[in-house]
Amino acid sequence: MARTFRVGLIGYRFMGRAHSNAWRQAPRFFNLKANVELHTLCGRNTAGVQAARAQLGWQHAATDWREVVESPLIDIVDIGAPNDLHAEIAIAAARNGKHILCEKPLALNVKQAEAMLAAAQKARVVHMVCHNYRRIPAIALAKKMIGEGALGKILHYHARYAQDWLVDPEFPINWRLQKETSGSGANGDINAHIIDLGRYLVGEFKEVCGLLHTFVAERPLSDAPVPQRGSTRKMGKVTVDDAALLIGRMENGALANLEATRFAAGRKNHIAIEINGSKGSVYFDFEDMNRLKFFNGDDPKDRQGFRDILVTERSGIHPFIGNWWPPGHLIGYEHTFIHTVADFVNACVEGKPVQPTFEDGVKNQRVLAAVAESQHKGRWVKL
Amino acid sequence: MARTFRVGLIGYRFMGRAHSNAWRQAPRFFNLKANVELHTLCGRNTAGVQAARAQLGWQHAATDWREVVESPLIDIVDIGAPNDLHAEIAIAAARNGKHILCEKPLALNVKQAEAMLAAAQKARVVHMVCHNYRRIPAIALAKKMIGEGALGKILHYHARYAQDWLVDPEFPINWRLQKETSGSGANGDINAHIIDLGRYLVGEFKEVCGLLHTFVAERPLSDAPVPQRGSTRKMGKVTVDDAALLIGRMENGALANLEATRFAAGRKNHIAIEINGSKGSVYFDFEDMNRLKFFNGDDPKDRQGFRDILVTERSGIHPFIGNWWPPGHLIGYEHTFIHTVADFVNACVEGKPVQPTFEDGVKNQRVLAAVAESQHKGRWVKL
Amino acid sequence: MARTFRVGLIGYRFMGRAHSNAWRQAPRFFNLKANVELHTLCGRNTAGVQAARAQLGWQHAATDWREVVESPLIDIVDIGAPNDLHAEIAIAAARNGKHILCEKPLALNVKQAEAMLAAAQKARVVHMVCHNYRRIPAIALAKKMIGEGALGKILHYHARYAQDWLVDPEFPINWRLQKETSGSGANGDINAHIIDLGRYLVGEFKEVCGLLHTFVAERPLSDAPVPQRGSTRKMGKVTVDDAALLIGRMENGALANLEATRFAAGRKNHIAIEINGSKGSVYFDFEDMNRLKFFNGDDPKDRQGFRDILVTERSGIHPFIGNWWPPGHLIGYEHTFIHTVADFVNACVEGKPVQPTFEDGVKNQRVLAAVAESQHKGRWVKL
Amino acid sequence: MARTFRVGLIGYRFMGRAHSNAWRQAPRFFNLKANVELHTLCGRNTAGVQAARAQLGWQHAATDWREVVESPLIDIVDIGAPNDLHAEIAIAAARNGKHILCEKPLALNVKQAEAMLAAAQKARVVHMVCHNYRRIPAIALAKKMIGEGALGKILHYHARYAQDWLVDPEFPINWRLQKETSGSGANGDINAHIIDLGRYLVGEFKEVCGLLHTFVAERPLSDAPVPQRGSTRKMGKVTVDDAALLIGRMENGALANLEATRFAAGRKNHIAIEINGSKGSVYFDFEDMNRLKFFNGDDPKDRQGFRDILVTERSGIHPFIGNWWPPGHLIGYEHTFIHTVADFVNACVEGKPVQPTFEDGVKNQRVLAAVAESQHKGRWVKL
Repeated sequence: MARTFRVGLIGYRFMGRAHSNAWRQAPRFFNLKANVELHTLCGRNTAGVQAARAQLGWQHAATDWREVVESPLIDIVDIGAPNDLHAEIAIAAARNGKHILCEKPLALNVKQAEAMLAAAQKARVVHMVCHNYRRIPAIALAKKMIGEGALGKILHYHARYAQDWLVDPEFPINWRLQKETSGSGANGDINAHIIDLGRYLVGEFKEVCGLLHTFVAERPLSDAPVPQRGSTRKMGKVTVDDAALLIGRMENGALANLEATRFAAGRKNHIAIEINGSKGSVYFDFEDMNRLKFFNGDDPKDRQGFRDILVTERSGIHPFIGNWWPPGHLIGYEHTFIHTVADFVNACVEGKPVQPTFEDGVKNQRVLAAVAESQHKGRWVKL
Repeated sequence: MARTFRVGLIGYRFMGRAHSNAWRQAPRFFNLKANVELHTLCGRNTAGVQAARAQLGWQHAATDWREVVESPLIDIVDIGAPNDLHAEIAIAAARNGKHILCEKPLALNVKQAEAMLAAAQKARVVHMVCHNYRRIPAIALAKKMIGEGALGKILHYHARYAQDWLVDPEFPINWRLQKETSGSGANGDINAHIIDLGRYLVGEFKEVCGLLHTFVAERPLSDAPVPQRGSTRKMGKVTVDDAALLIGRMENGALANLEATRFAAGRKNHIAIEINGSKGSVYFDFEDMNRLKFFNGDDPKDRQGFRDILVTERSGIHPFIGNWWPPGHLIGYEHTFIHTVADFVNACVEGKPVQPTFEDGVKNQRVLAAVAESQHKGRWVKL
Repeated sequence: MARTFRVGLIGYRFMGRAHSNAWRQAPRFFNLKANVELHTLCGRNTAGVQAARAQLGWQHAATDWREVVESPLIDIVDIGAPNDLHAEIAIAAARNGKHILCEKPLALNVKQAEAMLAAAQKARVVHMVCHNYRRIPAIALAKKMIGEGALGKILHYHARYAQDWLVDPEFPINWRLQKETSGSGANGDINAHIIDLGRYLVGEFKEVCGLLHTFVAERPLSDAPVPQRGSTRKMGKVTVDDAALLIGRMENGALANLEATRFAAGRKNHIAIEINGSKGSVYFDFEDMNRLKFFNGDDPKDRQGFRDILVTERSGIHPFIGNWWPPGHLIGYEHTFIHTVADFVNACVEGKPVQPTFEDGVKNQRVLAAVAESQHKGRWVKL
Repeated sequence: MARTFRVGLIGYRFMGRAHSNAWRQAPRFFNLKANVELHTLCGRNTAGVQAARAQLGWQHAATDWREVVESPLIDIVDIGAPNDLHAEIAIAAARNGKHILCEKPLALNVKQAEAMLAAAQKARVVHMVCHNYRRIPAIALAKKMIGEGALGKILHYHARYAQDWLVDPEFPINWRLQKETSGSGANGDINAHIIDLGRYLVGEFKEVCGLLHTFVAERPLSDAPVPQRGSTRKMGKVTVDDAALLIGRMENGALANLEATRFAAGRKNHIAIEINGSKGSVYFDFEDMNRLKFFNGDDPKDRQGFRDILVTERSGIHPFIGNWWPPGHLIGYEHTFIHTVADFVNACVEGKPVQPTFEDGVKNQRVLAAVAESQHKGRWVKL
């Protein structure tokens, strides 16, 4: 009979909702090798976490993450808290022998990330960083095709992650705009994703030249209405980057061009990736996430063109999606977390590593750090 | 304290999975006015329904739908069985005072549909036909915009529902290809959806001229491999239409052009709808279901063009989607059922009608019948 | 040494400009088997035709088309005058032994068209109707692919020609809106084009059921400003259809669905064609005229999808376009006329038929007539 | 009565054909303030230039460009020769008082470019560098909209010019791959175009960090077939860059990201430009050159989205295009040259500067040089 994993999830807001849904749905659509129990949801605000517990379907609520990581009832610790808490929680969880799924970026800096990896390795627990976009069916298909040589030798990795939620200068400060809690801005939050996809699909970065920029240096402390005449409005300083750009070279000779910004009006979650190889190319845009565009240089000359692959075919043809609905029936954002959790659970049962591990998290963090260093020094930085 | 509805679902295959998921997810993402309990899942095959019960998260399994509709424990009967069972189940459920959600097409013919409506009205239960596509955020937005007059007077309703799962002549016979169980082919299965969207977004049909056609008249009885030489292959007769086309006039003067086919290679679930009005147009394609294209004739002349609206903004701006994820984070096929169930539950609490009712189902069935009559007589048919 | 054809062109407005350009440009980009001379431009308005002659580069101007067709100096008569003049001019030109290129629709009715064909055949002149869209490179490529069997057996021809220039009820009456000069409205003007493309790419129509509709029955006589209060505005009656729809069956078993309208807000010259066959599909939109979308059912299952073929490769790969610019460098509307003229000139030299001939024009006219008859009788009409 | 300009064009291959066409067509579609005469076509190969003269419609042919620039019969010198000849020809033409239209990049280096500008200024002739893409109607519309403030303050300029004609390592060496004749590779040939569009639409570059890379270092000397076993194949060294990337900051605070490559399989002439401002964004792709995508942050919240503007409306609404065909009828690559020539001719008549002048050429050349210097030094370079 299958064993059961009891899960403790730290964080109940955006990522908390997405991860809760993943734990709930994964067993319904994937034949997991273990049962999962949504055991404890943890957050600092008592009322908030209690309401979330009921809404999201957890058995228990807690306000101190130490209780969760130390509880003998818990098998898996899932970290969806702000970035500054990742390292401390993860290291404690590892010491307590819990398997760990941690949101990205892995940590505030390389040192923290390395400590997390060391702790997890020492404890021999399964560790995974939640770069959920790897398990978009279209991305997983691209990985498979590239692995099979469909693109030949890779020459270009061109990626842009563009959002627009900060274009409005009235948008208030939050923890993602504070260096202490977030580590960085667009760099760690969204550049990290396209760095990860580059590492996954193309290979390791060798050297980079980066640029970080803050367009709006000061923002309201809350979204309270503009105060009356005579009073003073409370403003806070934005201490992270609004946009992160880099050009670089990868170990395998490919050129890299990455841009991450929260200031591209009209782009909501536009992860636009193009990979060009000596035999073909692929293009992907998250705002059209069920599709992969593929140019095959081996097609007959008169009928070459980017194929618009709707990645919704049954199991055995397209990755992950066959567990859902018939061809042509789309899936969405949340499914990427469900796929991640499904693979993580099976890895925990088998005690095997599951990509992307904390090692991937460390390598990602090094690229983020190199971008910052390059910006600081005004020159290229080797990895 | 909120009351609880116990649900009995008849059918556990494609629609059974979609509806189960909807019942499970609706309370997690919408503030329903009642609790729901996934009480009984019903299907004819004992082993099949038991396995499905466990996988899909129902408390009980049953093999006789009469038990479900007669059980005093059940409040809501959800009908996802083949079309030939809809009428009998729904009428029995109504007589037992159950609220009813029924898959489309409502029935095998107009007479059955009318009897279902009469039974539901007599029993004063809430009745809804599951035209889930009405609750795609993009479609709901189109409805709102049209209602506000953004398109002016409607002139054209052009719709195509194209799939390709029958292009392969080796695809075996199933209940959807048998008149006895299905009533019709592309007409009732998919033309019904674009008829419903036309009725929802534009208005009632006034007269139609239709064409039904079967491209492949005979198919293997199962997907077993082609038999050895010397033996005879078992073939079955396809007794429904493979494609249904119609041109027509609507009550409000708009012209209609609908085409439903399962023989359009490369089109997986291509519900392509264009509505042109005196002031603007909208275009929608289900294979890109998070978007609505909108042409506004009132935009300045030099910057008119179809807007590509990513219908993922927060509550208060875009319908339904705000209960899910931040802007730019897509949803998929299954969400349309969750939205349907959420509205249905709230209507059951309030004892109010919820569109589309069985009356909509009857009207839809009349259009389906008019298409068939028109094909038979070779001339226009008034509704 | 190559011979020289002297051309006389009747008509100097929209079609006059397009044809003049074609005669001027064809020898510069195609190796014609004869020289061409832009000899005489003819139009009824003396000042107008003189100004046009200078602007468009013709040697002489004339105001009486009879002079042109009877002139011993003229070898080719190109007819770009309103539809009611086609028959008379063409028949006279044939009798005078001129090769004839005539704008579409060939005539006001089938009888006229048949007389034109008979006259041209009797005179053994080369005759061509200017369905210029056949020579869009993407369409010519589709023709080639279909001929090679890339789509298998054709099942569906779905076409829509949508414009929006009449949505504004203030748009004044012109000759295209008068039955006497135009013969019909959307039917002959634009439905004729998609009928032609259907005949070219798929095959002959067998039976149709059609619908003709006029949305705006009365329009201002000119685009003069709305008159002062007290005075009466001069209005004219629209005597042709604003929209023409048809469903039909083709000789080879394919189903047809055509819609032509001038009332689709936002659609400027949207000729959207989809052809589905047993092995694949093609899709084309004139507003993106340098591309052909092609779905190949023989592609590996995991990488099927509509290919976005940019039809701009060099000669030997893609039709016509190689005479222009390097790959990726687009051509436009006017080029379709240049390709038509180039093929016409070579056919004149060789004395061979060149598609589409007046016979194609006659067959097209029969479909147009069948649509009108079907509308009149409210039933299907066989061809 | 209008005066007449006699044109001498140096170069008869790709640019020679495009410029010849422009000179021939401009007077037919634009009301030029002068007549133009295609007087002399000049090229080094006698047979080649004679054949081209006849094909392209020039009165005379010459093999020595000095004859052309010194001829008292010539008013305008149009330079379409390889890059290494631009400076010498242009300076001589200026000294002879000719107005000068010169292909891009203006020169091999900044010094040459500055000398050309000085010579033209001294001679008080009209001078223009042929950045034809400025006069794509969609780009001219973007310029107008940005000038009117439709995007607010510009934050991002993201541009990619991707081609694929060098992906095949068998593609032979030509003058564009030799530093002596071309100056640089992708940098001067195509990066120059997106630098120009950035300068035109956004503003001056302030500092850049660039990367130049050559993927294929050696190529066949000709496209002769691979030689027999035993013989040695003649190979040549590629001495220019295959790809040029840069990140940068612009004077007005916008961030820049440019990538130019000839190694992007499937991209034929993909000039993809996105400009994000505080109020909106525009997107353009040359492979879809008749369209401009525009996101207007001032649209109502529920119906925001990139508008797909088909830039084909009549004069007074959209730039340039109104001189061609009715709305929805596309134009192509060659038209950008015709628009350029039309504006150039009118500027010559008026004796006024016409953008982009040689001064623009000089500034462009400085950015190209900064990219090369940055690559050499491995750090940022200020302009």
